[in-house]
Amino acid sequence: MISVLIIGNGNIATHLVKAFLGADTINVTQINSRELGTIPKATVTILAISDDAIATISSKIKNSLVVHTSGSFSMENLKNTTNKGVFYMLQTFSKEKEMDFSTVPFCLEAENKEDYLLLEKIAKTIGRKIYSVNSEQRKALHIAAVFVNNFTNHLYTIGNDICEKHQVPFEILQPLIQETSEKIKTLSPKKAQTGPAIRNDKKTIKSHLELLSKEQQEIYKLITQAIKNGN
Amino acid sequence: MISVLIIGNGNIATHLVKAFLGADTINVTQINSRELGTIPKATVTILAISDDAIATISSKIKNSLVVHTSGSFSMENLKNTTNKGVFYMLQTFSKEKEMDFSTVPFCLEAENKEDYLLLEKIAKTIGRKIYSVNSEQRKALHIAAVFVNNFTNHLYTIGNDICEKHQVPFEILQPLIQETSEKIKTLSPKKAQTGPAIRNDKKTIKSHLELLSKEQQEIYKLITQAIKNGN
Repeated sequence: MISVLIIGNGNIATHLVKAFLGADTINVTQINSRELGTIPKATVTILAISDDAIATISSKIKNSLVVHTSGSFSMENLKNTTNKGVFYMLQTFSKEKEMDFSTVPFCLEAENKEDYLLLEKIAKTIGRKIYSVNSEQRKALHIAAVFVNNFTNHLYTIGNDICEKHQVPFEILQPLIQETSEKIKTLSPKKAQTGPAIRNDKKTIKSHLELLSKEQQEIYKLITQAIKNGN
Repeated sequence: MISVLIIGNGNIATHLVKAFLGADTINVTQINSRELGTIPKATVTILAISDDAIATISSKIKNSLVVHTSGSFSMENLKNTTNKGVFYMLQTFSKEKEMDFSTVPFCLEAENKEDYLLLEKIAKTIGRKIYSVNSEQRKALHIAAVFVNNFTNHLYTIGNDICEKHQVPFEILQPLIQETSEKIKTLSPKKAQTGPAIRNDKKTIKSHLELLSKEQQEIYKLITQAIKNGN
């Protein structure tokens, strides 16, 4: 049995605890980050807390290996004096929805080989996709995730707003949205590109711009230019 | 039997002909738009040709009902003197991939009820999702599609570029991309929004900008601002 302590009670902590409870070889304990009176001993301590709390909380922990779950913070942000590591899961977690860890990419980092293998062993009890990712790479992934998740979702919002304004159901766009995200499993996004920008179809682009709000126009122009530039 | 003539030999024409060949109540014929010597008679003539060719080709057709498949052109762009309509399928079509018409939204328009019902009848032989969409609404849908398909795909390209630059596999982002597109089936995109922009997390935003190219920075700043504005 490997003892795992999870500190935190947000979405990630909740889903992780639930998953580890189903793993035969893991003995999981959870505590709230605001009640650190006595910190239980554990082989691995996972801080599933907000980025801003990582330094303070980690500085109070004496357990042998302390890891955080942050995409944007480096391993060095941990202030424990024992060993450090990162246990980052690149996926959106929401409280309501069940999390299927078999599809979640685990991005792991540790100071030494032994600790890495331990983290890998733990990740494998609940997941299948394990990657060795250093702090610089993880930061790059986190930024890339902002583009493909947050920013993409904003483009969905614009699509939704345009539909509402013209009283057509947004659901008409759903199969296209689905297909767009599926296509790049087999084709590089650059090769998958279609539409007026890549065709440099000036007439269509002009007619589209006329129907958009000022803010939508700016986004339309900038991304159209970027597609034309091939960047 | 309803006789359907398809003019064109691109992706849409190819997939449509294949689908109609499997429909019991449709008698389908196909001709190339460059060989209009004798145009076969048909109850419905579908122009699956490039937007720019719609006016010229339609002006040569005497069949009773002529429709085009364009998202951006209005019904009035047809120059036949008989009845007009639109048979627009909102989906990306690629030559290599089999098309599942049961998930494709058919956006139909006609000049009168009788013609609309005929188009609906034809669409129902191969599809399941049928919508009545007028020319103005279709144009709005087409613009919205540029945002959720072409522009989203460009954000995937940026994600891919960032990954390549830092030597992490792009496939790590695939489950997140998938989840982002799934989430909005049950949640409005506005409500689904997460990340540094909506949290107004200035520190993270600043650290992200430092790692981006000039063009990526411009897109990052503009969409971050739009998310903050709540538009």
